[in-house]
This record gives sequence, C-alpha cells and structure tokens, in this order.
Amino acid sequence: MEDRYPECWLEHRVSYGETDAMGVVYHAEYIHFFERSRGELCRTCGLPYADIEAGGFMLPVKEVHCLYRSPARYDDLICIFVRVSEIRKASVRFEYAIYDASRTRLLCEGMTLHAFVDRSGRPVAIPGWIREVLDGSRAAPASL
Amino acid sequence: MEDRYPECWLEHRVSYGETDAMGVVYHAEYIHFFERSRGELCRTCGLPYADIEAGGFMLPVKEVHCLYRSPARYDDLICIFVRVSEIRKASVRFEYAIYDASRTRLLCEGMTLHAFVDRSGRPVAIPGWIREVLDGSRAAPASL
Amino acid sequence: MEDRYPECWLEHRVSYGETDAMGVVYHAEYIHFFERSRGELCRTCGLPYADIEAGGFMLPVKEVHCLYRSPARYDDLICIFVRVSEIRKASVRFEYAIYDASRTRLLCEGMTLHAFVDRSGRPVAIPGWIREVLDGSRAAPASL
Amino acid sequence: MEDRYPECWLEHRVSYGETDAMGVVYHAEYIHFFERSRGELCRTCGLPYADIEAGGFMLPVKEVHCLYRSPARYDDLICIFVRVSEIRKASVRFEYAIYDASRTRLLCEGMTLHAFVDRSGRPVAIPGWIREVLDGSRAAPASL
Repeated sequence: MEDRYPECWLEHRVSYGETDAMGVVYHAEYIHFFERSRGELCRTCGLPYADIEAGGFMLPVKEVHCLYRSPARYDDLICIFVRVSEIRKASVRFEYAIYDASRTRLLCEGMTLHAFVDRSGRPVAIPGWIREVLDGSRAAPASL
Repeated sequence: MEDRYPECWLEHRVSYGETDAMGVVYHAEYIHFFERSRGELCRTCGLPYADIEAGGFMLPVKEVHCLYRSPARYDDLICIFVRVSEIRKASVRFEYAIYDASRTRLLCEGMTLHAFVDRSGRPVAIPGWIREVLDGSRAAPASL
Repeated sequence: MEDRYPECWLEHRVSYGETDAMGVVYHAEYIHFFERSRGELCRTCGLPYADIEAGGFMLPVKEVHCLYRSPARYDDLICIFVRVSEIRKASVRFEYAIYDASRTRLLCEGMTLHAFVDRSGRPVAIPGWIREVLDGSRAAPASL
Repeated sequence: MEDRYPECWLEHRVSYGETDAMGVVYHAEYIHFFERSRGELCRTCGLPYADIEAGGFMLPVKEVHCLYRSPARYDDLICIFVRVSEIRKASVRFEYAIYDASRTRLLCEGMTLHAFVDRSGRPVAIPGWIREVLDGSRAAPASL
C-alpha cells in the first residue's frame, strides 16, 4: 500500500552561495535540496542515512529528474516535500516538490532513484531492517 | 536536419570539492559539468552565453534529467560530450554524455531543456541570430 | 561600545553535498556557513541583507580568514555563532565560531571583512539607517 | 632555499554555477580555485595528491586566508598561480594569486596551511619521499 510510504517536509533558507548571476537559485542547488529533504525523511523515520552507511550499505543516486516551475531567490524560505514513492528489490525512489514559504507556489518537482549497494559497491537486495522503515511498516522508534 | 546541430567535447579535471563522503563525485556536480560543456559549445559556435545575456536574453533551465552509469573520482580527467538535440519556437534542448579520459567508459548521460526569456523573464521566441547558430546553419566566425 | 554589537546563533544540518572524499565537510563549505549565519544575524536585527541590496547597497567580501579546529561530518548538527566585531566608515567585520551540537567542541573560527558599495560597485560610507542596526544602537523592529 | 620551491599556473573557465546574485564569482569559490591549482601543482611535480592519499597520508586544510581584489565574472578565463611557500616538520603552506586572462589584473590572493596526517587522522612528520618533491629537491619524473 503505497499510501503508507513515509513523507515529510523540510524548511530551508536560501543562501547567497546558492544563487547565480541570474539572481535566482542555481538549478543544480535543487538537487542538493532534494538530498537535504531525503536525509530529513530518513531521520524522522528513525533511520538516519549515516546509520545505513554504518550498517554497511550505501544508496548512490542512479537517476535524477527535475522540473523547474518558478525561481527561488536569496533569503527565501523554501519548503521541501519528500516521500518514498517506490521500493523495489534493490532500489528505492523518492519524489520531491519544493514550494515557497506559504506552500502554495510550486518552485520545483522531481525524483531520484537510488540503488542499494554494499561497501564494495555491489548492488544488493534491501535488507529487511531498512525495507520496513522505508515502506512505513515499522514505526519510528519511540525515542524519536 | 538534426545531424547538423552543433556539438563539442570539453575536458574537466575533477576537484576535491566536487567529491563527497562516498569517495566519488557528488551527483549534483554532474549538472555543473553539463553547464560547463554547454557554455563551451556556445563559445565554440561563436556565440558565448555571456553575449546572449548581453543581447537581452536568458536561457533558464526548465528541466534536467541525468542517468548515472559509473562514478568519477578525485583527480579524474573526464570528457563531456554535448550537443544541441532539439530547437523549438521558444526553447532549446541539449544532450550530454560524460566519459572517462579514454572516452570509452560512460559515467553519466543526461539532458537539459531551456526556455528563452527576455530580461523581464517573459518567454520569447528564439531570435534569428541565435537560432541560426544553435541549428548550425551559420558557421562559427572565422576568427574562432 | 563594542559589546553592544549584535550577535546570534544559527543551527545547520550538514548535507552529503557538503562533504568530500576525506569523509568530512569540505573546507570551503565553512565559508558558506559563515554567510548563512551572517544573513541570519542581519535578519534577527530586523535588517535582512536582501533589504540592504534593495536599498541600493551591497557588502562584497574583501577578506576571509578561517582556522579549522576539528572536522564536522555528514548529518552533524552544527551551531554557528556570529557577531559584528568592527564597524568602520565604509566597511564592517564579522567574526564566527562554529561548534558541534553541544556547543562545546570548536570546529572552526574565522572572520570576514566587507566593503560597502553602491549599485555601481563604488565604495561608500555606511548609511546611518544601516550603521545603527549593525552597531546595535537601534533595536530590531517590534514586528520581529 | 625557498626560491626552489615548486610553482605553477592553472587556467580555469568561470562557470555559471560559480557566480552569485551579485553577478560575480561567489567568494567561497576562490577557495575551490586554490584547491584546483594545488592539485595541479602536485601533479606537475610528479606527485598527484591522489598518490599521497594512496600512500596513507592526507593534507587537511588547517587555515585559509583570502584577500579579494577585483571580481571575476561568468565565462572569464582566470589564471591561478600557486607555489609552495613554507615546509615545516608536519605541515606545508601554499600561496596563491589569481589573475585575469591577461595575467595583469589581480583578482584574489591567499594562502592555505595544511597538516600532514595519517589515515587515522593523527599528525605525522612529512615523509621524505613527499618532502623532496614539495621542496623541489627531487625533479619530477621524466615521464611527465
């Protein structure tokens, strides 16, 4: 049941270093915003990405797609929505939608696809203790 | 005739700042590599992007797609192939393929779609003096 | 009285894109952290930097100094302390100290010196309405 | 004899992603330029930094100082001069000067100080095979 898949919001303040000479946020920075929200999602699920790596797994990005709808500017507070959108045997897909501070104006939407690999970089099946967090079947630990 | 569309190669040395804690080039950096090669293509066509902006036009990125095939690492010399792949009334599309130094191992491939806008940000038809460069019907100036 | 000069703290979560192949935050990223905290300081003083630019002034960086004490890593929550440390006729200096989440382990300290320039880039004396915010003699607006 | 210390030049084309909303190169990017030139210097000396790391040593940055003289802009070709300026028991210092394409207008100058550490991060004395390259007493291999 996909609708159980975890999701969350992350707020982010646009820095000067994220802008370019057009006076708006440089397009590659949105890929960083995706990553920030993905890390936040893992953390809120009780599975910080650092723990996944400590457990011997990495999730390298295999594909990125991004549609730019409206520009963000310096000092804007932006709101990044992220959710797990698909879990396969050895890969996971996240979807993103970035809004302005009022969460009404869509700035950007996109997705990233990640492989599961071990420390040597070989693709591996997603282990159960990670899968049950990503698919929302195991609640985040109470301590969080 | 699409096969007349301009294309070029750009070599780039991977810096430490472009890597991440996985020991490879961070995925968003490839979007920067795309941009570097696009700028090089415009320059080799005799139409530096800075001249396009000086002429009152900008080409904001509307869409990015990127497939990651094999990681690049610190100090690698990478070879970026770029070509104009489609020209519409008010947009242009570029395609990219990034290889290792031997140009045999594919690291990444992707595309970017750009709108043509004027200084106020309104979409405009591509002016003739830019179109004839992008579609290859006007040769680059002899001085280049 | 320098001790009235404004100061503030900003928390920041380290992203993967801010790390490098050594497994720690890339050294140039701390300069971005300085900038983020500087923007936060201006905002908490009731004078967002975007308003300074809208008022016709810019504060380009003329000098940066940074001492690295201890590395930060992916997903670390870091705490950035910033204060105005010196105000001259046409320049302002900020000092920074970045700590771990417990605010006990010093990661990095540094300073930036900024010129005041007008839209054409010419150095100008700091206007009164900005000076009295930077030196702490005018409280932030009640609305903040 | 300090005047034997290695030095070199590196050319670099400014990308759009390196600019900011002021229309010039963002100040933290110069720290990346320093790093690019340092890597080039090691390479031209016959000692690529990747080989130093493969040998079990790392040179984390302990200090950065940077003076900004004149801004660089998108598409500018900049020329980065780098030299080893001091070698101590367990640290090495590099100096930098960045010029425009004509190598007459100074854009930025600075220095970085680096510790020598082993894989566990402990400071160590610079091993002889690295020291003799950094101090210029051993010529680069003929193959380069």
